[in-house]
Amino acid sequence: MPVCSIARTLEVLGERWTLLILRDALLGVRRFDDFQQSLGIVRNVLTDRLNRLVDAGVLERTPYQERPQRHDYRLTPIGQELAVPLIGLMHWGDRHLPGPEGPPRLTRHHDCGGDVRSALVCDTCGRPVSAGEVDVRPGPGTARVHVR
Amino acid sequence: MPVCSIARTLEVLGERWTLLILRDALLGVRRFDDFQQSLGIVRNVLTDRLNRLVDAGVLERTPYQERPQRHDYRLTPIGQELAVPLIGLMHWGDRHLPGPEGPPRLTRHHDCGGDVRSALVCDTCGRPVSAGEVDVRPGPGTARVHVR
Repeated sequence: MPVCSIARTLEVLGERWTLLILRDALLGVRRFDDFQQSLGIVRNVLTDRLNRLVDAGVLERTPYQERPQRHDYRLTPIGQELAVPLIGLMHWGDRHLPGPEGPPRLTRHHDCGGDVRSALVCDTCGRPVSAGEVDVRPGPGTARVHVR
Repeated sequence: MPVCSIARTLEVLGERWTLLILRDALLGVRRFDDFQQSLGIVRNVLTDRLNRLVDAGVLERTPYQERPQRHDYRLTPIGQELAVPLIGLMHWGDRHLPGPEGPPRLTRHHDCGGDVRSALVCDTCGRPVSAGEVDVRPGPGTARVHVR
């Protein structure tokens, strides 16, 4: 297993289809055929990626029909936590790879209707933190020289 | 160009090596040989991925030696903004794919030394927002049916 938590995460999420499946799941897509239609992905690749996400505890497979048996796929609480980095990727794309008409999707705070964004915050002083104000230091799990 | 900003972003960042290159860049790796050693990546693949990130404006190539000419690669301000989703992916891995000894890396607020985390916040009311409190709505750039 790689030392770095980003590398570990990418072993689960590590290619484009998987992240797009998770995007669809966050947007409420649940059924195999709907993922397939949304993504235009080959069915056996979709099956493989969904199974991998179920094995990793990110998606949960639930039967919704008996004959023939059919399942849907929902984010587990662990999977829902990926909303933070996925929304971060989405807003980065909104800012730096914009389409001609503006953002394809808006993220709104359910309670007040305000724009939601992903940000770095400090747990101690509570202040927002810019990328330049973050010190990345070796933690207890850094045993080896290589960071892979 | 795909409608979704996550899909657009993944066209730039869309595979594991690219995200690991960006992770190394955030950690201060700058030279080709250091990326190569850190990642164990084949040289022509690394060249291709670095060039793609330079073309996308995420990395900047700067000469640091004349004969033979050598360049290093640094994050542009646009690239630095990817710290937010990358730190989000890292902390997700720290929580859900932990190693036996704890997190390989710690993110500390430079000013106060506190833990930095990525979070969703509301721009209007200023409160932290959980994934379940986010409404994702069609924005002005949603022209087509498919979300790819």
